[in-house]
Amino acid sequence: MRTDEKLTQLRALMKEKAFYAYIIPSDDFHSSEYVGRYFKAREYMSGFTGSAGTLVVLPDKAALWTDGRYFLQAGEQLKGSTIELMRSGQPDVPKIEEYLYENLPDKAVIGFDGRTVTKRFLETIREKTDGKQITFDGSEDLVNRIWTDRPPLSKEQVWELDVKYAGRSRAQKIREVREKMQEEKADQLLVTALDEIAWLFNLRGGDIAYTPVFLSYLLLTKEQITLFVHREIFSAQLLEKLGQEGVTIRPYEEIGQAVGSMPAGTKVWLDSGAVNYRLTESVPETVEILDQESPIVLMKAVKSPEEMEHMRAAHVKDGVAVTRFIHWLKTSVSRGPVTEVGAARKLETFRSQMEGYLEPSFSSIIAYGPHGAIVHYAPTQESDVEMKAESFCLADVGGHYQDGTTDITRTIALGELTEEEKRYYTAVLRGNLTLSAAKFVEGVSGQNLDVLARTPLWEMGMDYNHGTGHGVGYILGVHEGPQRFHWRTAPGTKSVPLEEGMIVSDEPGVYLEGRFGIRLENLVLCRRGEKNEYGQFLYLEPLTMVPFDREAILPELMSEKELAWLNAYHQKVYETLSPCLEEEERGWLREMTARIE
Amino acid sequence: MRTDEKLTQLRALMKEKAFYAYIIPSDDFHSSEYVGRYFKAREYMSGFTGSAGTLVVLPDKAALWTDGRYFLQAGEQLKGSTIELMRSGQPDVPKIEEYLYENLPDKAVIGFDGRTVTKRFLETIREKTDGKQITFDGSEDLVNRIWTDRPPLSKEQVWELDVKYAGRSRAQKIREVREKMQEEKADQLLVTALDEIAWLFNLRGGDIAYTPVFLSYLLLTKEQITLFVHREIFSAQLLEKLGQEGVTIRPYEEIGQAVGSMPAGTKVWLDSGAVNYRLTESVPETVEILDQESPIVLMKAVKSPEEMEHMRAAHVKDGVAVTRFIHWLKTSVSRGPVTEVGAARKLETFRSQMEGYLEPSFSSIIAYGPHGAIVHYAPTQESDVEMKAESFCLADVGGHYQDGTTDITRTIALGELTEEEKRYYTAVLRGNLTLSAAKFVEGVSGQNLDVLARTPLWEMGMDYNHGTGHGVGYILGVHEGPQRFHWRTAPGTKSVPLEEGMIVSDEPGVYLEGRFGIRLENLVLCRRGEKNEYGQFLYLEPLTMVPFDREAILPELMSEKELAWLNAYHQKVYETLSPCLEEEERGWLREMTARIE
Repeated sequence: MRTDEKLTQLRALMKEKAFYAYIIPSDDFHSSEYVGRYFKAREYMSGFTGSAGTLVVLPDKAALWTDGRYFLQAGEQLKGSTIELMRSGQPDVPKIEEYLYENLPDKAVIGFDGRTVTKRFLETIREKTDGKQITFDGSEDLVNRIWTDRPPLSKEQVWELDVKYAGRSRAQKIREVREKMQEEKADQLLVTALDEIAWLFNLRGGDIAYTPVFLSYLLLTKEQITLFVHREIFSAQLLEKLGQEGVTIRPYEEIGQAVGSMPAGTKVWLDSGAVNYRLTESVPETVEILDQESPIVLMKAVKSPEEMEHMRAAHVKDGVAVTRFIHWLKTSVSRGPVTEVGAARKLETFRSQMEGYLEPSFSSIIAYGPHGAIVHYAPTQESDVEMKAESFCLADVGGHYQDGTTDITRTIALGELTEEEKRYYTAVLRGNLTLSAAKFVEGVSGQNLDVLARTPLWEMGMDYNHGTGHGVGYILGVHEGPQRFHWRTAPGTKSVPLEEGMIVSDEPGVYLEGRFGIRLENLVLCRRGEKNEYGQFLYLEPLTMVPFDREAILPELMSEKELAWLNAYHQKVYETLSPCLEEEERGWLREMTARIE
Repeated sequence: MRTDEKLTQLRALMKEKAFYAYIIPSDDFHSSEYVGRYFKAREYMSGFTGSAGTLVVLPDKAALWTDGRYFLQAGEQLKGSTIELMRSGQPDVPKIEEYLYENLPDKAVIGFDGRTVTKRFLETIREKTDGKQITFDGSEDLVNRIWTDRPPLSKEQVWELDVKYAGRSRAQKIREVREKMQEEKADQLLVTALDEIAWLFNLRGGDIAYTPVFLSYLLLTKEQITLFVHREIFSAQLLEKLGQEGVTIRPYEEIGQAVGSMPAGTKVWLDSGAVNYRLTESVPETVEILDQESPIVLMKAVKSPEEMEHMRAAHVKDGVAVTRFIHWLKTSVSRGPVTEVGAARKLETFRSQMEGYLEPSFSSIIAYGPHGAIVHYAPTQESDVEMKAESFCLADVGGHYQDGTTDITRTIALGELTEEEKRYYTAVLRGNLTLSAAKFVEGVSGQNLDVLARTPLWEMGMDYNHGTGHGVGYILGVHEGPQRFHWRTAPGTKSVPLEEGMIVSDEPGVYLEGRFGIRLENLVLCRRGEKNEYGQFLYLEPLTMVPFDREAILPELMSEKELAWLNAYHQKVYETLSPCLEEEERGWLREMTARIE
C-alpha cells in the first residue's frame, strides 16, 4: 500500500472516532530507543525508517518530526509523499505542540495508542494548547486496523548473564533498589524500561534488534518481585530458579490490571517520562505517585569493577576485528569491487571470529564519500555504492560480546586525500583527543566538558548537529543515560556529574552534505584519579583500541600535547592488539601507529 | 562591646520573643551584594567583615556560613569568639537548613529581620525542616536594639547619567519593560534591586560604597511609575524633570503600604528570590503573583552599542592608570619602602588623574606574597606589609568612570621568581587566554565554557575555589548577573546563554595558602561573529588593556597558539596605551609587550 493510501485509511478511522489529530510516535510500550518489528507503526505509516521520529496526521495534512541525525535520510524517504518534514530544532520549525496549537480547533480530540506515548509528552501538548480544551484519547491503536500483515510481538528466548560477567547478583541488586525505595518511602516501584529490567535480573533476551532485552514489566514491592512477561521466553530451569528466588511470573498483558489494583494508601515510584501513558493513567487515584527517574538508571550507568574489566576485554577483541577490517578495506579497495554492504558483511565476518561475539550493537554504518555526511546512514541494497581508492569511508560500528558492548567510529582514507579533507580530519581528531585527555574535578558533567571536543571545529566556524557522546550499556542498549557529552541539556533533564564507572562515547564529527563526513569515536571510561586539597580528580580511560588514520592527519596543525596524546594512544593500541594479529597485519599496524612528530 | 557580649544580649531578646533561633544575613532590604553601613548587622554581631556570610544564633551556640572567597579571612576574624565557622560547600559542612534541622526542636520559632531575607531563602529552610512545624517571625530587627551607635540610612545625592552614556532614555527603557509586562499579562512590576532601578532611570547615587546606586523601590504599572525614595536625595531640577516624565515620588518607607494596597484581581510580577520577605508577604491574597526574574536583569546585562563603546574608552583610561601603577610598583619596590596600603593609594592617584574617574568599583586588593592566597583580601592598617623585591603582588582593582566600570587583576613579579612560581603563573595565564580566545555558537553559556579556563590547572591537579567570571554592570555593581563563567550552576538558577553585549570577567587563579596567590583577570565583551550554515558564532573581545608580566611566563609551557594569542593581545595593548603614556613608561611598555617566541 502506498503511504498516501495508508493515510487515507487512517483519516477515515479518525473520522469514525471523531479524532481531529492522530499521533504516531516511534516508541514501543517501554520507551525503547530501538523497537521490535511489531512496533514500527510510524515507519509503516510514513515510510521513514530512522529510529526517531513522530508522525502527526490531521484531516488535511500530515507532518513528521525528526532530529539532526536524520534530516537527509528523512528528506529522501518522504519524497513523493504528502508528509511534510519537520527538522526539529532548526530555526522556524515549529515544535509538535506548537504545530498542534496552530492547527487544532477548540475542543479537538487527539488520538494515539496510549501505550506508545508518555504522560510527560502529552503534558507538553496540554500546556501549549491550554485554553483550547483539547482532550486526549489513547484507548485504541488505529494503525492496527490498517496494518493487516503486522508482525507478531517478539517472544525470543531469554538467557542468563553469569554473575562473573554481571558483577553483582540479582538478589544483591534488588536489595539495593529496595533500599532506595525505602529512602523515598515508596511501597512499589514500577519499571517498564527493558534495559533496566534486564540489568536488574542479569538476564538478556532477543526481542529487539541490537538490544538484548526481552519484553517485560516489573512491579517491585517490599515483599514481592513480579515480572510480567511472555512465560514461554523462559526455559523451565530458569523459571524454577527465578521461582526459588521469589520472583513471580505473570502474563505480559496483565500489567495494566496489576497497576490498576495497587492497594489504596500506598505510594508508587514511577517515571512518567518513561512509563507509558495508559499505565500511568491506570494508577488508582488512591495511590500516591512519586514521579521521578527510576533508581536503576544511575545504578546501571555506573559500571561495577567486574563490568569495567570485561568491557576492556571486549574492546580488545573488537579492536582486533575492526583493525583487521580497516587493514582489509584499505588494501582491498584498489584491487577489486568493494561496496558498502560488502564491507559491512566483511566486518561482521571479522567480528564473528572473535570469542564470545553475539551480534552487532546497532546497524553498521559503512558510509562511502557523500554517504558519510548522512549522520545515521546505514547501507541498504538500494543505497549501496562501490568504493573507490579516494575519499573517506566512515565506519560507525559496534558489537555485543559475552563480556561487553562496543561502539566505535573510524573514518578511513581510501586513497590520497585532499588538503581540505585532511584539515577537517585533523580538527575532528584534535577534538576527540582533547576531550579524551580531560582531567577534571568531581561534580563536573558532560555538559561542562563538551566544548573541549567542539573547540577545534568552532575555531574554524564549523559544528556538528549531534551530541558529542552518549552512555553505553553493558550488553544492553548501546545508547543509555543519564550521562552524556552535550553542551545543551534537553529541556526537563538535568546534567549528571560524571562518576567512576560511567562509560561515554567521544565522537565529534564534520559533515559536508553531498561531499563527505568525518567522525571519530572512542568509548571512554570515567576513572578516579588523584585526590588532594583541591578535590577528587577524575579522568577518562579510552576503552576503544583501534588506530586513527595517519594518512589523514596534518601533524603541523596539532599542538605538541595533542601529538603526544595521539602517540601514547597509538603505542597502547599497538601493544594491546599486536599479539592477537597475524604477521602482515601486525607489520601494517606498526606502521599505522608509528610515532608522528 | 565584645562579640560574646553582643550574642548574650541577642539571646536575652530572643528569649523575650520566644525565638529559638535568630538569623542575621548580610543583606540590606534590596538583596544588594555590598550594603550601606546601616545594614552591616551581621558584621556588627560577628566581627567578620567579608561581604558574604550568614550568622545563625541558637541559645547555646552560633555559627557563621561563608563561601570559599572568605574561608581564610573569616577564620582569622572569628578567632577567639564562640562562633563556629561553616565553610559552605566543603565536604561534611552542613547547609544552614540542615544545621537548623539538626538543632531545632519541634515548633521552634525562627526570628530575623524580614526585610533582610527573601522568601526563597526561607522556603529552603521550610522544605528541609518540614515535619518539625517550624514558624518564621520576621517582624522585628532585634540587632537594632543592641546596636546603639548604628549609623543612619544613607541619603546621598542622586545624579543623572546623560543619555549619550546610557544609550537609551528612561522613557524608552520603561516602554520596553512595559512591553515585557504585557507579554506576561502583569499589571504591576515590583522592583527592589537598586542597580535595576538605577539602570532603568539612568540615575546614579551614592548610598552604597563602590556601587553608585540609591536606596529606592519601584512600582511600575501600565499607567504609573512610582519611585519610593528619600525625597531629599533628588535636586529640585531632577524632581521637576521626573515629574514631567510622569514619575511619582513617594517616601522610601511607604513601599510596604503601597504593596499592601495593590488592587484585588491584579497580577504583580516580582522575584521572590530578590524581593524581601516582608514585602513579598505584604502582597494581598487577592493579588496574583508572577514569581520570576525581573525583566530588567537581562536588559541591563546586554549592553547597548553606546555602552559598549564607552566601556572600551573607560578601559583605555583604566589601562593607562594600571599600567603606570605596575611600572611604578616594579621600579619602586627595590628603592624604598612600599606597602600594600601605600601602593593602593598610589594606584588611586594614577586613576584620579584620568578623565571622568569617579571612584573604585570595589575595595582594592593589593596583596603581597601570602596575602595573595586570601581570595578577597583587602589591605588594612593592621594587615599591611612592606613588599620586597621578590615574590608576587596580586592587584585586583577596578574603577567607575563617567563612561564605564572596570575590574582587572594582574599578578606582578616584584623580583626574580622561582621556577614553581613561573609554572603556576603560566598555567593561570594559559587558562585566561584559552577562555578569552573562545569562539562558540549561539546558545552556549558560561557554564559550558568555564572548563577552558580551568583545564591547564586541572591538568596539574589544581583548581580554584571560585567562579571563573562574573558579569559587570555599567557604572553599577561590579558583579552582576545573570551570565557568569562557572561549570557549576547554583541550585535553582539556570545557565544563561551568552549574548552580544554581555560583559564577563575571565579570572582564573591559583592560591597556595601561606605562600602566594596568582590571579589574572580581563573583562571580555561578547560579540557576534560570522553566521553560516552551522549557526551564529560568538566570540569574546578583551576590554582590559594592561600587559601580563613577561617576567613570570615560561614560554616553553605554552602552545604556539597560546603564544600567538598573548603576542596579539600585547601588541594591541601597546598600540592602544602607548600614545597616552610618558616617554619612559612607553619604553618600558614596549619591552613588556615585545613578542615572546
